[in-house]
Amino acid sequence: MPEMRIALAQVNATVGDLDGNAGLLVAWTKRAAEAGARLVVFPEMFLTGYPVEDLALRASFVEASVAATSAVAARLDAEGLGGIAVLTGYLDRRAGARDRVGRPTGSPLDAAALLHGGRVVVTSAKHHLPNYGVFDEYRHFVPGDVVPVFRLAAGDGGGAGEAVDVAVAICEDLWQDGGPVAVTCAAGAGLLVVPNASPYERGKDDTRLELCQRRAREAGAALAYVNMIGGQDELVFDGDSIIVAADGTLLARGPQFEEALVVCDLALPAADPAVGPGDTPADAQDGTTMTIRRVTLPGEPAAPAAREGAAATPVWPRLGDLEEIYSALVTGVRDYVRKNGFRSVILGLSGGIDSALTATIAADALGPDRVHVVLMPSRYSSGHSVTDAEDLVQRQGLAARTVSVKPMVDAFEADLSLHGLAAENLQSRVRGMILMSLSNEENHLVLTTGNKSELATGYSTLYGDSAGGYAPIKDVTKTLVWALSRWRNEAAAARGETPPIPPNSITKPPSAELSPGQLDSDSLPDYPVLDAILIDYVERDMGMAALVAAGHDPELARRVVQLVDRAEYKRRQYPPGPKVTAKNFGRDRRLPITTRWHEPLPG
Amino acid sequence: MPEMRIALAQVNATVGDLDGNAGLLVAWTKRAAEAGARLVVFPEMFLTGYPVEDLALRASFVEASVAATSAVAARLDAEGLGGIAVLTGYLDRRAGARDRVGRPTGSPLDAAALLHGGRVVVTSAKHHLPNYGVFDEYRHFVPGDVVPVFRLAAGDGGGAGEAVDVAVAICEDLWQDGGPVAVTCAAGAGLLVVPNASPYERGKDDTRLELCQRRAREAGAALAYVNMIGGQDELVFDGDSIIVAADGTLLARGPQFEEALVVCDLALPAADPAVGPGDTPADAQDGTTMTIRRVTLPGEPAAPAAREGAAATPVWPRLGDLEEIYSALVTGVRDYVRKNGFRSVILGLSGGIDSALTATIAADALGPDRVHVVLMPSRYSSGHSVTDAEDLVQRQGLAARTVSVKPMVDAFEADLSLHGLAAENLQSRVRGMILMSLSNEENHLVLTTGNKSELATGYSTLYGDSAGGYAPIKDVTKTLVWALSRWRNEAAAARGETPPIPPNSITKPPSAELSPGQLDSDSLPDYPVLDAILIDYVERDMGMAALVAAGHDPELARRVVQLVDRAEYKRRQYPPGPKVTAKNFGRDRRLPITTRWHEPLPG
Repeated sequence: MPEMRIALAQVNATVGDLDGNAGLLVAWTKRAAEAGARLVVFPEMFLTGYPVEDLALRASFVEASVAATSAVAARLDAEGLGGIAVLTGYLDRRAGARDRVGRPTGSPLDAAALLHGGRVVVTSAKHHLPNYGVFDEYRHFVPGDVVPVFRLAAGDGGGAGEAVDVAVAICEDLWQDGGPVAVTCAAGAGLLVVPNASPYERGKDDTRLELCQRRAREAGAALAYVNMIGGQDELVFDGDSIIVAADGTLLARGPQFEEALVVCDLALPAADPAVGPGDTPADAQDGTTMTIRRVTLPGEPAAPAAREGAAATPVWPRLGDLEEIYSALVTGVRDYVRKNGFRSVILGLSGGIDSALTATIAADALGPDRVHVVLMPSRYSSGHSVTDAEDLVQRQGLAARTVSVKPMVDAFEADLSLHGLAAENLQSRVRGMILMSLSNEENHLVLTTGNKSELATGYSTLYGDSAGGYAPIKDVTKTLVWALSRWRNEAAAARGETPPIPPNSITKPPSAELSPGQLDSDSLPDYPVLDAILIDYVERDMGMAALVAAGHDPELARRVVQLVDRAEYKRRQYPPGPKVTAKNFGRDRRLPITTRWHEPLPG
Repeated sequence: MPEMRIALAQVNATVGDLDGNAGLLVAWTKRAAEAGARLVVFPEMFLTGYPVEDLALRASFVEASVAATSAVAARLDAEGLGGIAVLTGYLDRRAGARDRVGRPTGSPLDAAALLHGGRVVVTSAKHHLPNYGVFDEYRHFVPGDVVPVFRLAAGDGGGAGEAVDVAVAICEDLWQDGGPVAVTCAAGAGLLVVPNASPYERGKDDTRLELCQRRAREAGAALAYVNMIGGQDELVFDGDSIIVAADGTLLARGPQFEEALVVCDLALPAADPAVGPGDTPADAQDGTTMTIRRVTLPGEPAAPAAREGAAATPVWPRLGDLEEIYSALVTGVRDYVRKNGFRSVILGLSGGIDSALTATIAADALGPDRVHVVLMPSRYSSGHSVTDAEDLVQRQGLAARTVSVKPMVDAFEADLSLHGLAAENLQSRVRGMILMSLSNEENHLVLTTGNKSELATGYSTLYGDSAGGYAPIKDVTKTLVWALSRWRNEAAAARGETPPIPPNSITKPPSAELSPGQLDSDSLPDYPVLDAILIDYVERDMGMAALVAAGHDPELARRVVQLVDRAEYKRRQYPPGPKVTAKNFGRDRRLPITTRWHEPLPG
């Protein structure tokens, strides 16, 4: 069997940055060529970034993407990289009839292009469009109906002139039955390459490996899965690119949350010389017929270049569950700050665990000198609020200042007669205003420190502690906040470093400190009990009967469900933050604010 | 030809209120029966309200909807209404294979049920699912493939025993080619009834009438189109139900933004007695095959009841363009307040036109005694700010108070050194905090007074003037704010009432009054110029080349586009408000916050 070296470029694209992404494509192709690869594969929609959302519907942007794709093909050739086959995702459009939902011609495509010899050799588009969870692809794209099979000289390991056939599928095409995987099998391709922009969620890496192995066996082909890395608004892409043999054996795997070139030598079946270029129809086994579009890349391979000096990359080790989540949060913060042109962040430090963890994530993402923290004690703040916050500042070397909220609170209370919740919210809003004022004055991005349990139950103040531009732990339940904090401290200790988070912030009972002696447990169930209900209600969408059947206390479950339902208006105005669970508060969960639906108690 | 009296119930359902909506269904069916109708048609998803968003994916809610549909059929019969045919929308689900995007069995349906004789006689579901603009129906539903054709005794006007055939389509089924309209024609039905939940946008009523006329001619059948009325979060349903004859002649039309029973006597072709009940396949002319499901309702019609005393309803007069928009805003505010359990609203009154119009809309929606206004002058407020605001309070009899922002602003400035924009924003945020504090203390809903031009360009302060629970004019450009204000005053004058809005608020140059002598025109182009660019860029999604080709100044267009692009993060945290244009800032326009796409200047 001919042997071919391929490379997967799991690189951090930026949405809308056509020039910047094209520059990355050239630079990483150069690295791939230097490593002796015949073929380098970039992620889904790499040239535009992903997801572009409604930019897919703007004609000027689609045209620019198509032009950028041709331009980068020419640029590769001009830089001596025309001999390596480059497969990249981009945004294209189909001229033709109206699509199935009646949209006019020129419908957008989530496309892939094969670049070689200075030109776009063949293109295709995603066939299966995800339209659930965070995905709205029926809104943005029409389905593709072509599977390209390109033949290229393997160039090494086998006899001269031996060639292999490579098919292309895109992201969701791998997750659904039928379509490009079935067609790849019918076409007899030796390798299926799959560009992806697959957002991270907890535990998804395990699912992905199993999926790649299963689909490789179904297609009867080796499978190379390349995923984007980096943050984009609420999504974090984790990389985790995978190469498996046709029998499912894992051959190479990329790191998580890091850019990398995954290089692998594949023994592939030789292409059948009796099968030539051209289009043939194929039953996609999903009720549609697709076109197999065979092309042959011209020319013999160039000399194997620096091949001997560059080793294939290994299977990077997997991160543990907590490290993986923590890395996703750090990546989300780093990229939101950087890609939006900020250099620093600011947040309030209460001495509690939420702000402590948020500050630690930010310091890991940006460096402690770019993390500005403000201590804003009030009349109800306990002594440990200040000492724990100061301890954290000392441990990490953050840029800290103290602003007393008393004069501002007094000024409001002198003119407005506020009681109970209104008085509590006032303190929280004064803090939010101080942070926003300092953000405006000094150009920091305000980080919001609320966790998912608070966001779920509405245990936060609109324009108070919910104020800010990015919310790093909004998809992290309180129990997970504690677990991540403990893990981060233990990881530091294991490296011989100072644990960054004051142990007292982790162990003390949580309190919003907005009234005398207040504890979270005055208003909310204990967090382990609360979070278990929240995971079943929010992430698993269980109704009340299912919650009770799952063992939750009926009265407590009813109360929690009611809190969650009533807080929808607050969540609608919450800043974005990185998704790490199967269902975040954001694009994943879209409920009306106005509703009178109340989950009925069973029986 | 047999004659049959039908009724369309354009009623205000509430999302999630299965009991309440069922009660409305019974009450309005009773009215229809008393008016002598043989058939009454309710809007799309009437029993659940519309849109239910991700509640469609919750098994407990789907089950409750199905149960409520059977229960209301039985209740109709128990109340002596089993003899009238009732067609209503509801939420159902299909057991069976996985759908086209791979979702498991039990996929939800946007369904319609025919209720008669105490039971659900036949059901169907929307075939064409809209997935553009504000609609996400590929996320929530699977397409229906049945067109019911039910035969019922016409009962009046013709010979005894004469019957007519009625087919059913749902909302989007009318807007797309092929599908239920084509099948209705093939089935030879005499009448096509169409339940809708079609959100208002400016000028849509003209489009709707033309559509109904065209589809009636295509189907060779009379067509009865019933639409919901009322507000639901960002959507307002305007009613505007329509009945046309098979040749397109307009026979009856309901009012806009009001509940009504539209009653009409239709001369319909007699059903062919040779065609009996059962299923037959039909080419839907959209690439699919649908099933025609014929059923015959048992029994002779009851005596014509109070028929003689109840006249068919007329074609209600159309509202003018500005009155129509204004009515949509009033409906949106009234229903958001009422359906979310508030009794009153609060807003800041600056003397400017935005807050004046917002207060007027609120007073028209709720009555002036439920509209609380706060005058919050600052050091930069001009004399007319206070006098114009006081003038408005006098004209309308609103509940007013004055709170000086000076002590609070001073308290912040004593501890924080703020300049320029940070100092301007501070004043705006103090005002937002005062309103939120009073809302918390007194249980008013805070109304946000920003208009679409501000929201587009980011000319507002996060957590300042953008704070609030509902934003009545967020989809109204500044030039339209003025036009609506003038119209409202003129309409009052024409009725011999005091014009509610101070003329000086309409005519004076707009200013945020956050720095000395500040005018909007210091920062923004003149509003007529700005709004023309905004409509082309935001609502028509033109790129830069198209904007220039449309005659906009290139440099100005570039500046406006940049302002709009940079303000996405502010819009993401803005409260909801009623959609009145073809594209609002909300579900209609979904763009990434993080993007480096800049519309290129042509050439």
